[in-house]
Amino acid sequence: MGVAVHAYAAHSAGADLKPYEFELPDLGPDYVDIAVSHCGMCHSDLSMRNNDWGFTQYPFVPGHEVVGKIKAVGSNVSHLKPGQTVGMGWFAGSCMICQSCMSGNHNLCPTSEQTIVGRHGGYADLVRCKSEWALPLPEGLDVAKAGPLFCGGITVFNPLVQFDVKPLDRVGVVGIGGLGHYALQFLKHWGCEVVAFTSSASKHEEARKLGAHHVATSTDADFKKWKGAFNFIIVTANVPLDWMGFISTLAPKGRLHFVGAVPEPVSLILFPMLMSQISVSGSPLGSPVTTARMLDFCVRHQINAVVETFPMSEVNHAFEHLHAGKARYRIVLANE
Amino acid sequence: MGVAVHAYAAHSAGADLKPYEFELPDLGPDYVDIAVSHCGMCHSDLSMRNNDWGFTQYPFVPGHEVVGKIKAVGSNVSHLKPGQTVGMGWFAGSCMICQSCMSGNHNLCPTSEQTIVGRHGGYADLVRCKSEWALPLPEGLDVAKAGPLFCGGITVFNPLVQFDVKPLDRVGVVGIGGLGHYALQFLKHWGCEVVAFTSSASKHEEARKLGAHHVATSTDADFKKWKGAFNFIIVTANVPLDWMGFISTLAPKGRLHFVGAVPEPVSLILFPMLMSQISVSGSPLGSPVTTARMLDFCVRHQINAVVETFPMSEVNHAFEHLHAGKARYRIVLANE
Repeated sequence: MGVAVHAYAAHSAGADLKPYEFELPDLGPDYVDIAVSHCGMCHSDLSMRNNDWGFTQYPFVPGHEVVGKIKAVGSNVSHLKPGQTVGMGWFAGSCMICQSCMSGNHNLCPTSEQTIVGRHGGYADLVRCKSEWALPLPEGLDVAKAGPLFCGGITVFNPLVQFDVKPLDRVGVVGIGGLGHYALQFLKHWGCEVVAFTSSASKHEEARKLGAHHVATSTDADFKKWKGAFNFIIVTANVPLDWMGFISTLAPKGRLHFVGAVPEPVSLILFPMLMSQISVSGSPLGSPVTTARMLDFCVRHQINAVVETFPMSEVNHAFEHLHAGKARYRIVLANE
Repeated sequence: MGVAVHAYAAHSAGADLKPYEFELPDLGPDYVDIAVSHCGMCHSDLSMRNNDWGFTQYPFVPGHEVVGKIKAVGSNVSHLKPGQTVGMGWFAGSCMICQSCMSGNHNLCPTSEQTIVGRHGGYADLVRCKSEWALPLPEGLDVAKAGPLFCGGITVFNPLVQFDVKPLDRVGVVGIGGLGHYALQFLKHWGCEVVAFTSSASKHEEARKLGAHHVATSTDADFKKWKGAFNFIIVTANVPLDWMGFISTLAPKGRLHFVGAVPEPVSLILFPMLMSQISVSGSPLGSPVTTARMLDFCVRHQINAVVETFPMSEVNHAFEHLHAGKARYRIVLANE
């Protein structure tokens, strides 16, 4: 006697999504079922639908920026209750016992369960996850806009915590889309001097409204203007750019940090990195604790995604909108 | 009425060194003159002699791992006295007023004076530097072996301080030469589990004596064996290796750190770096304060370079020995 789920699935690489019903087994002791009210649309949903990374399993149900109410909890789960509003993101379970989990870095667990990898995601009326990844939404967070925090938001928030970005720092944000538009808001309220790098002139004014003190482009002229200026640069773009140009804009001990999976290799010339003690790094999402602290930070500073909402049934239309680069800045699918 | 210096200089790229006399101007107020007793031989002396980096000026006097007695101090220098034994290394002066200098990171000063760049180094009877870079040798340090600490030593010691390497960490050392043989000793006394990566079977036994708990090679078999094992890897080699292989041996939050100027670009695949929050970085030498603390650490733990000593007059023979890859592990030139 399992649980029936009404979802939208692609049945082959690049195919449109169609209504798709499947049954989940009985709820395991450490799991919860969430009745999805909203689910954000991340570029990785599109990449996975298209099998860009080569490990998509079909039928494929995307969606990993879920907000909804707890529908049922497993027998071991005592800290969550049916009816409670929660969010969940890229991760749907961690082993809870490896060194990463045991030191609070559940997002680095090597055997984590990933919401849309080998299992079904949140473009559905119900999604399941282990209870540690179902995070109660604090009072004051807009449920209709909160979903994208659980992937896009935490992806750019977590590095500020991991690398101890300080309010005194000058920080560059490369790429002003779903992730970048969160980064600008977080950094503004973090106390930093914020510079948005975008190739889209149409985004300049909005970038300033979101928190950028200055807007720049990845051109030699701007690299020269901002030479040695940044303590931290967060790259949300997933296309190849002039990385050594960006490194030239880092201050001594500066860091160029990637959160987007740029598929092309990043080629580094070591000499300037050595001379200024530069770091280049990457990170995935964030732990449940860091995510919960981000939610509180968002309430405190009234940080919200700028969203375009589509009914869940118009998921293919939403994918087209995203693919065309027209999303401003995050798409959310709403169940009727 | 300047100061006469008897040195050894190359007069063109790759040429043998010949006795060379020149005159320094009168001592400036912030400078000191050091009567060189010993000077280490670093691979960068050879690279500079050969103009490998394209900015050598001839006649070229190498040498930047100097130990000797203060011969004269400038009018502003009150903390050093003639007759005092000091060491000095790659840097011969910092501006003392930029943000890097003012925050204690004199080695990151963008206008630093470099001992063998556009000026003459320590293969001579006298070398000059600004007083902040002439560091008194603590009691108990072997003068005849201390020179290499001021470049080779500090280059591998400083990253332990900068990146907060902990006694609980497992650390890999790639390349067991002048720098690597110091790194093994430092890390052993730092409390770490130490793994030496060397392609030279003849160095395995010595690497263990110097501090390595294990010895490995940069092969797929060893990358597999040490998968996810290292918190920190310090690369002292300056040849291209399988960097993604090394990255696969890093634990979550691990760092691959370069201190050798590998001339070939380092090509990084971001995906595994993102998944495990990996950093790749470089650093140059260390500040005067960090260098002084390293000297104390060496006295406390009786850390010494393993040196081969040549008379200064046999500098060309010593260069041949170094070029042939025969140095075990650091060459020191001694003035008669």
